Amino acid sequence: MDGTFDPESLRPVLDGRWEHIRQEARERMRELRPPAGESGDTEQERARVMDGLRQLTEQGYPRLGFAKEYGGEGDIGGSVVSFEMLGFGDLSLLVKAGVQWGLFGGAVQALGTDRHHTRYLRAIMDLELPGCFAMTETGHGSDVASLLTTATYDPATSEFVIHTPVDKARKDYIGNAARDGRMAVVFAQLITGGESGDSHGVHALLVPIRDEQGRALPGVRIEDCGRKGGLNGVDNGRLSFDHVRVPREALLNRFGDVEPDGTYTSPIESPSRRFFTMLGTLIRGRISVAGGSGSATKTALALAVRYGEARRQFERPGIGTEVPVLDYLSQQRRLLPALATTYALHFAQEELVTALHEIQTAALHGDGDDGREDGDKTEEWRQRELESRAAGLKAIATWHATRTIQDCREACGGAGYLAENRLVQLKADTDVFTTFEGDNTVLLQLVAKGLLTRFQHDVEELGTLGLARFVAEQFAEALIERTAARSTIARLLTARGEPDEDDLLDRAWQLRAFEDREKHVLEGLARRLRRATADDADPFEVFNDAQDHVLRAGRVHVDRIVLEAFVAALDRCDGPAAPLLARVCDLYVLSTVEADRAWFLEHGRLSPSTAKALIETVNDLCKQLRPHARTLVDAFAIPGHLLEVPITQGPPATD
Amino acid sequence: MDGTFDPESLRPVLDGRWEHIRQEARERMRELRPPAGESGDTEQERARVMDGLRQLTEQGYPRLGFAKEYGGEGDIGGSVVSFEMLGFGDLSLLVKAGVQWGLFGGAVQALGTDRHHTRYLRAIMDLELPGCFAMTETGHGSDVASLLTTATYDPATSEFVIHTPVDKARKDYIGNAARDGRMAVVFAQLITGGESGDSHGVHALLVPIRDEQGRALPGVRIEDCGRKGGLNGVDNGRLSFDHVRVPREALLNRFGDVEPDGTYTSPIESPSRRFFTMLGTLIRGRISVAGGSGSATKTALALAVRYGEARRQFERPGIGTEVPVLDYLSQQRRLLPALATTYALHFAQEELVTALHEIQTAALHGDGDDGREDGDKTEEWRQRELESRAAGLKAIATWHATRTIQDCREACGGAGYLAENRLVQLKADTDVFTTFEGDNTVLLQLVAKGLLTRFQHDVEELGTLGLARFVAEQFAEALIERTAARSTIARLLTARGEPDEDDLLDRAWQLRAFEDREKHVLEGLARRLRRATADDADPFEVFNDAQDHVLRAGRVHVDRIVLEAFVAALDRCDGPAAPLLARVCDLYVLSTVEADRAWFLEHGRLSPSTAKALIETVNDLCKQLRPHARTLVDAFAIPGHLLEVPITQGPPATD
Repeated sequence: MDGTFDPESLRPVLDGRWEHIRQEARERMRELRPPAGESGDTEQERARVMDGLRQLTEQGYPRLGFAKEYGGEGDIGGSVVSFEMLGFGDLSLLVKAGVQWGLFGGAVQALGTDRHHTRYLRAIMDLELPGCFAMTETGHGSDVASLLTTATYDPATSEFVIHTPVDKARKDYIGNAARDGRMAVVFAQLITGGESGDSHGVHALLVPIRDEQGRALPGVRIEDCGRKGGLNGVDNGRLSFDHVRVPREALLNRFGDVEPDGTYTSPIESPSRRFFTMLGTLIRGRISVAGGSGSATKTALALAVRYGEARRQFERPGIGTEVPVLDYLSQQRRLLPALATTYALHFAQEELVTALHEIQTAALHGDGDDGREDGDKTEEWRQRELESRAAGLKAIATWHATRTIQDCREACGGAGYLAENRLVQLKADTDVFTTFEGDNTVLLQLVAKGLLTRFQHDVEELGTLGLARFVAEQFAEALIERTAARSTIARLLTARGEPDEDDLLDRAWQLRAFEDREKHVLEGLARRLRRATADDADPFEVFNDAQDHVLRAGRVHVDRIVLEAFVAALDRCDGPAAPLLARVCDLYVLSTVEADRAWFLEHGRLSPSTAKALIETVNDLCKQLRPHARTLVDAFAIPGHLLEVPITQGPPATD
Repeated sequence: MDGTFDPESLRPVLDGRWEHIRQEARERMRELRPPAGESGDTEQERARVMDGLRQLTEQGYPRLGFAKEYGGEGDIGGSVVSFEMLGFGDLSLLVKAGVQWGLFGGAVQALGTDRHHTRYLRAIMDLELPGCFAMTETGHGSDVASLLTTATYDPATSEFVIHTPVDKARKDYIGNAARDGRMAVVFAQLITGGESGDSHGVHALLVPIRDEQGRALPGVRIEDCGRKGGLNGVDNGRLSFDHVRVPREALLNRFGDVEPDGTYTSPIESPSRRFFTMLGTLIRGRISVAGGSGSATKTALALAVRYGEARRQFERPGIGTEVPVLDYLSQQRRLLPALATTYALHFAQEELVTALHEIQTAALHGDGDDGREDGDKTEEWRQRELESRAAGLKAIATWHATRTIQDCREACGGAGYLAENRLVQLKADTDVFTTFEGDNTVLLQLVAKGLLTRFQHDVEELGTLGLARFVAEQFAEALIERTAARSTIARLLTARGEPDEDDLLDRAWQLRAFEDREKHVLEGLARRLRRATADDADPFEVFNDAQDHVLRAGRVHVDRIVLEAFVAALDRCDGPAAPLLARVCDLYVLSTVEADRAWFLEHGRLSPSTAKALIETVNDLCKQLRPHARTLVDAFAIPGHLLEVPITQGPPATD
């Protein structure tokens, strides 16, 4: 590829729809204290991050995501993008902000009604009311429908009694709980009609946990989770409740309410469907995690690429100068496909945020169906699709972050291990991203199950049993719902006849390869589950034996969504950087196919000779992109002071 | 697989030749302070680890590895095994012990002569003389032959002048330097005949760096590397020298000496060969790192398997109880192939230690050739083979550790992220193992280059240029030098005709698969390099373009060595655990082939249908081994108190 490219010609393509938000965020980040390696003094780290939260409050950061009626700006997509940008800096601050305004504030906004909004949202935005999102319990993390905490209504006093019946029902890993939180959104099984009464499934209630002096309130036990692998600026703790009473109005009652006499009402009849609808409104958190992990990945790559250009090792024979380590193929192989995938995930994230923004903005303006069972099915379908994509992208993006940051650390050798160079802290802080907001393995299964049932209405049948009995009809074509760049892709696919198997750089071949793989994997999975259940087998065994197939189905689906987003971005990009971006897309596609080429070979999609050529093409793309690596990371426009670490300062001056 | 197995029937097979050392180490570890998550108070952590070092001294730990003449026990293999066992506990202590006795003491023993041994070895063993191994510089880590520090001989005073000529020549990441070291083995370019005199290549000298009060000596600048990703109990620092004078006798003069008048003498004429011979004597450090990383991996697996049995999530339909997470195929897939590989690497490590022990013990008793150029070629060949295997196993074992500990952390979800459960500290501490004692990527290339040149004598020709011009003759057969279980393997391979491609569980098929792959990859690489150089191409480009092929050659070679070690262990194991161990070997082999099945497909070694069957066989082996997972980790016999963390204590008592 000839010529040089200006990062400034790429940046607007990456910045996309919320470019103004991104630029403002870059400005604001200059005022924040730059991240330091953890001092190890937990109290100091927590205090520092709480200070950062106050600073964000002063900057007006929290307002973006809240409705205008309560002093917010009502820019849902913008709030997710603004959060994502924080990921270039201190990740403890990112997570603490996410807990306070995304999870806690977000739950009050999404699950509460006007009485909660009026009373609490301003205080939450202003950080006058620091709060927690208390869902996970020691005994139930992935299976949140089985939470054990109870909220039993007492009509005599019009109160709910919040109780932790067994040790494993204590709320665990709760951010903001160990030090700062005053109130918690507590998820509990709602019971009316006394202790042996009717259970209506999991609901959320606002429960004060500390007084103004920061002391635990009577009946509330607060423990500290102590040191973690990272994110030690966030005060994670455990909460247990001993018959703690809160007024009836503490119930966040958008999807279910209790009359003073104890009568339960809800717009959604099925308890399971009701709960999944509630969870669906909280999707912003999951999407935000994917975004934040992307920023951390970009930072790691920016550091490693700069190091790779400055660091030299071993003389080049016949030349006598030492070789910049990024000139080695092994270093390119480590960093450049990861960089290309980071671009791909960036565009997929932008598209997901756009979908979230449109769906939730419509809902805010009353265009949505509010989960009513007689609602518009298209609306519900879009919501389910959003949830599925959020789950899938969160899993793929956070695994990508974990792997890439690790590779960047290794690519920087011993210098990469020093705290001053940020990489180890990035790794330590992002490590739990694959676990929180939904364990990745569980999320990918959700994606696959969603695809198999084509977003059927009966969520309660989504269990293993229901799924294993599922019979697919006219399955294949319906599966591939294009989410992005529909017309471009259609044009690409029809512009010519059958693409040549050997033309790996043909975009139509690439799109077909991903699409065909997804279809085949899903069809095979459906057939396998159907066949197995015909023999009256144990449905758990059937499903469990196919679990690797299920996970693969989720993964290849996400790959296709991601590629389509990249193609859509190429379509938008007609500036001078277009040829560069097209090569990055090629590297994303071909390194993805390369990693999975066993599948393509096993299913006759690639001949052995083409598979071997593929490896050489990936090598060649790495070589072509090597001179532009710095441009590609510069286009992320990470605020410079966040990259000013010894590792990027080149060799010592007296070299 | 029917029946249950007793971990005690497996333990002796794992404990092997140095069982008594392992059992003693287990006893001694009970007296050491158990590892805690890092407090973040660097000074406190360093003091704690220094205390641990004193305790090890009192226990007599250091004696094993030193010669009997100086108060040691002269059990070279035993000392490596004893070090390995420390890896179950505090990894900062492991590394600090490695620095003091392995690197510093080891260099004095291996590179010094009687005058150094008599004067220093007891003080080193007794920790009266804490020291450093100062090889790596800021500017040169992998390419240590290009170090810039100088040791210039001054015949007027019979002294060497140690000097750091430029900033990037400062010694960097040096363990024991920031706080405790009094003396350092400094690697420097030895110059005689004045500053513009003759350079004799890199040599090692003993340089005092601190006085009795711990103050830096005149001309010595000591900086602190500060916080690291882990291992913060080890005081890594930077050393610079401003014309620091040491007496002529400070030169560790086994392989090169300077007469009082400045005449340089050496038993090895070629400076490059001399330096590589010196490095070769220090091989114990690299082997020790592989062992230590194995112990950390075992610990992580023991924690994750216990958690996987105790932790339950999601009800099993129709049964009503929650499923232990280790019953899920996805969890088995994460942990059990890694566990099988850990077994395989354990046996390969045991064999490597045995080879080291025999070669170095023979050298101690004067049976070796001391590097003389007229020495016994078989002896030299064995040494080169040892170095190659040490490099390869170190790379594969430490990458395995990084990946496996990460997977174990993820498999334990949020609990895995809490410091109290050890996994994050294990990950953080072992992270740099892929970098120190040789960067893994560089090491695997050494392995491949060594194979290509079949341990040619002319080490100086091992550079890129020499290699690219290399012409292979009757290459293939000579490559596969079996290192273990020669007779067993020969018997297996000849007991029957061509093995059936479809019988994946046939050990002969498995052995052939690994051997054939290695041969093919190496032959292909040699052909490729030869062909490319015929066109008068730039040798750097030729070699760099093939770097992925080179790395693959190193990797598949190590895989074969590892498998042969496992087969040798099966051969030794005739007790009741033999069938279990055989299944573990199957899982190791088939999960390794599965991960690389694209290659087997591309090269017509597996048909698509057999490749698909392979995936199912791996699933089936996971299922078969699931009930024995606990037995397999219990057989490591990790001292119980090191596994007593909340995560292994099962659900809270009031469950």
